[in-house]
Amino acid sequence: MTPASEHEDAVPPATAVAQDPLPQAQTHGAPTPATPPAQQSPLKRRLRAMTSTEEIDSTINRPGSVKINVQGAFIVDPDTATPASGGSGAANGRIGGSLAKVVYFSREVDSTDPGGRLNFQNFETDRIDDCVEFMRHLRDNQLTLNGSQPGELCVMATGGGAYKFYDKIIEALGVDVLREDEMECLIIGLDFFITEIPREVFTYSEADPMQFVVPRDNIYPYLLVNIGSGVSFLKVTGPRSYQRVGGTSLGGGTLWGLLSIMTGARTFDEMLDLAGHGDNAKVDMLVGDIYGTDYGKIGLKSTTIASSFGKVFRMKREAESAAEDSPVPNDSESSFSGADISRSLLYAISNNIGQIAYLQSQIHNLSNIYFGGSFIRGHRQTINTLSYAIKFWSQGEKQAYFLRHEGYLGSVGAFLKRQPRNWGRRGSLEGMEEMAEARRNQREAEAAASTT
Amino acid sequence: MTPASEHEDAVPPATAVAQDPLPQAQTHGAPTPATPPAQQSPLKRRLRAMTSTEEIDSTINRPGSVKINVQGAFIVDPDTATPASGGSGAANGRIGGSLAKVVYFSREVDSTDPGGRLNFQNFETDRIDDCVEFMRHLRDNQLTLNGSQPGELCVMATGGGAYKFYDKIIEALGVDVLREDEMECLIIGLDFFITEIPREVFTYSEADPMQFVVPRDNIYPYLLVNIGSGVSFLKVTGPRSYQRVGGTSLGGGTLWGLLSIMTGARTFDEMLDLAGHGDNAKVDMLVGDIYGTDYGKIGLKSTTIASSFGKVFRMKREAESAAEDSPVPNDSESSFSGADISRSLLYAISNNIGQIAYLQSQIHNLSNIYFGGSFIRGHRQTINTLSYAIKFWSQGEKQAYFLRHEGYLGSVGAFLKRQPRNWGRRGSLEGMEEMAEARRNQREAEAAASTT
Repeated sequence: MTPASEHEDAVPPATAVAQDPLPQAQTHGAPTPATPPAQQSPLKRRLRAMTSTEEIDSTINRPGSVKINVQGAFIVDPDTATPASGGSGAANGRIGGSLAKVVYFSREVDSTDPGGRLNFQNFETDRIDDCVEFMRHLRDNQLTLNGSQPGELCVMATGGGAYKFYDKIIEALGVDVLREDEMECLIIGLDFFITEIPREVFTYSEADPMQFVVPRDNIYPYLLVNIGSGVSFLKVTGPRSYQRVGGTSLGGGTLWGLLSIMTGARTFDEMLDLAGHGDNAKVDMLVGDIYGTDYGKIGLKSTTIASSFGKVFRMKREAESAAEDSPVPNDSESSFSGADISRSLLYAISNNIGQIAYLQSQIHNLSNIYFGGSFIRGHRQTINTLSYAIKFWSQGEKQAYFLRHEGYLGSVGAFLKRQPRNWGRRGSLEGMEEMAEARRNQREAEAAASTT
Repeated sequence: MTPASEHEDAVPPATAVAQDPLPQAQTHGAPTPATPPAQQSPLKRRLRAMTSTEEIDSTINRPGSVKINVQGAFIVDPDTATPASGGSGAANGRIGGSLAKVVYFSREVDSTDPGGRLNFQNFETDRIDDCVEFMRHLRDNQLTLNGSQPGELCVMATGGGAYKFYDKIIEALGVDVLREDEMECLIIGLDFFITEIPREVFTYSEADPMQFVVPRDNIYPYLLVNIGSGVSFLKVTGPRSYQRVGGTSLGGGTLWGLLSIMTGARTFDEMLDLAGHGDNAKVDMLVGDIYGTDYGKIGLKSTTIASSFGKVFRMKREAESAAEDSPVPNDSESSFSGADISRSLLYAISNNIGQIAYLQSQIHNLSNIYFGGSFIRGHRQTINTLSYAIKFWSQGEKQAYFLRHEGYLGSVGAFLKRQPRNWGRRGSLEGMEEMAEARRNQREAEAAASTT
């Protein structure tokens, strides 16, 4: 019986082989993967956690699937991920304002391991039909490989699209769609990543660009800042204990929307590329532009941004006046580069979120701040700006954390609310030995009965 | 000797006649102006404080000059203001990132009253030469009317321009320029308006659009939110006791700058007019757009803005895709109206400032929040948004206040740091009777000596 044809409810062998998820870390002399993180020395933990800056861009844009079994879980290099057609299990989607995210579980094709892997896929919601088609494909695979009946399958859904696209999904897939509360799913998903997945959560600073944090159990209380189209701030005090303490409408949707009006960029990545080589001082009014110097008395450096886009109005008017005086028509629009505009707006939105996050964490006495959502997308300037804002305002007393699977917190949370039995997660095999023992006893009883 | 030719240092008659500054209030049966506000009944105070909504637009755009004498101070209807050429005293400027504000004192031309009035004038800083020319004109008047010597005059200056334009002003006027700390001047000016000027400070709500607050002495602690090109948050605990607790670069400069790029508007007023008839739901993603309904569990109404400009990216891409498929060229830019964009951005910036103001007031345990700076400009939507944000986030526990002279806090503060002797302000005549007595005694002594 290969795992690929194994029915989802069947009992897998409990003697799974742990695989090494950390080839990069090994080159730094990390301990053998069999050593649980909690038993490592601080130095070794640190070595294991260090990552070169080159990896940052890819860690979020291609965060990889999560391989999971009874001995632990780890992130699999994206290039080695199981193809989507290689077997599938439950599909779970978080459908936010702009992106629909699908998380699904699949068995390993050519392995006798129990467990398998969590796969992550996203779709823009204006292509929701592609997303539904993908889920139909997962459903068909599931029916073929595992022999599930349509009535046994369901889609866990959360976010606004769980309501908006509810009828569409039911009609297309013919399976139950269970809708779960978005905020609750976010924190269930985040808790999973924080407590169980190595090389998932990281801190960032200019001096020490990407430092992975070892999974830990003692995580409460914390602030979750979920940045999608808009931003929610959640105070989390226990496994399912949370409060939405605030929100701001200045989020990813604002950045993408304004930049799509003001620059020629047509994709998120084009916009981030533009921001990468722009100079915000061309459009922002700095303290030095106002004072000609620092404003030392209140601790403002001359390079501090006093007003985002604060130079634009005057410059544009001057250009227009000049054009009126000149016989040659002049397109004053062209005096601002898309790159400078993109950099400025990225700073403005990120700084603002960072500042509100700090203020909320201060009010609610929280030291750890996690940034989730699909805003960051592995963009180093964004991570750096958010991280710096927290450090600056809190004078180093609060810590910003980032996640490779930042965009999948809600969808993983929805998945975990109805995880497949014995899918390999820590604790998911509890009771399995008793079941096996009971079956053995039953078989022996039947055999004994047939010989009498 | 007319006041117009009176030397600034001369002793004015102490028997000034109080004038009625409140013609509108009288139509509501307000008490006689001779009654000090503190002695009015609550009902009468309320009647006196009420104002029709029609007045709101003009109260800040044309806030009027402040007439001041030993019995009190009041705001003079702009139409009856003394012309700038009608006599002048000390000129005091606050030169911020975008506007230079001049406050100067003038005697009444045809009056024997002591005191006089404070006049308010602003210039955009890219026309700083006009501003300097205006100050030169004030200086010349002062020399002619009061016989002051150039060495006796000075300009009090604060804000960034006090540094940036320091040499220019000294060179043009040939007088001393004394630079004062900007934040300190802001609170000195605000304290003056709060404690001494009736019909200056007001609250706002949709149900009760403009409610003036009677001047009072017990004002500390409070939060000052000064919104110019950028925004500063000051915690004020006593007359010159303050701390800049935060700031955001998303201020007036951001609104004017982004709107000048995205709309055809070329002046602040055009932009506010556009915002006045725009529909932000055309560009903003509302909670209802995501959920199709309220998100009741966390108290978000379907009309709540989830993401400012959150609809733009998708709509723009759809328009571009359609244009690519269509043989007829289509300007997708035109699908967003300047009015909708202006309304959305005005809401976004105002809401954001309101939210940060609330958070700061929460952290520092402040119940009264004053909004100053030159951002509001009498625009009702802005006032309403800021006021609503404070009420919403604080659940009605904190109060937003607005000022007719919102843009002149710093310049008035600079003026007050070196106010002309005996200019009529409460307390400014202290010691005058003793001086007059001493002069009488001296004359009598001289007369007695001459007859012996």
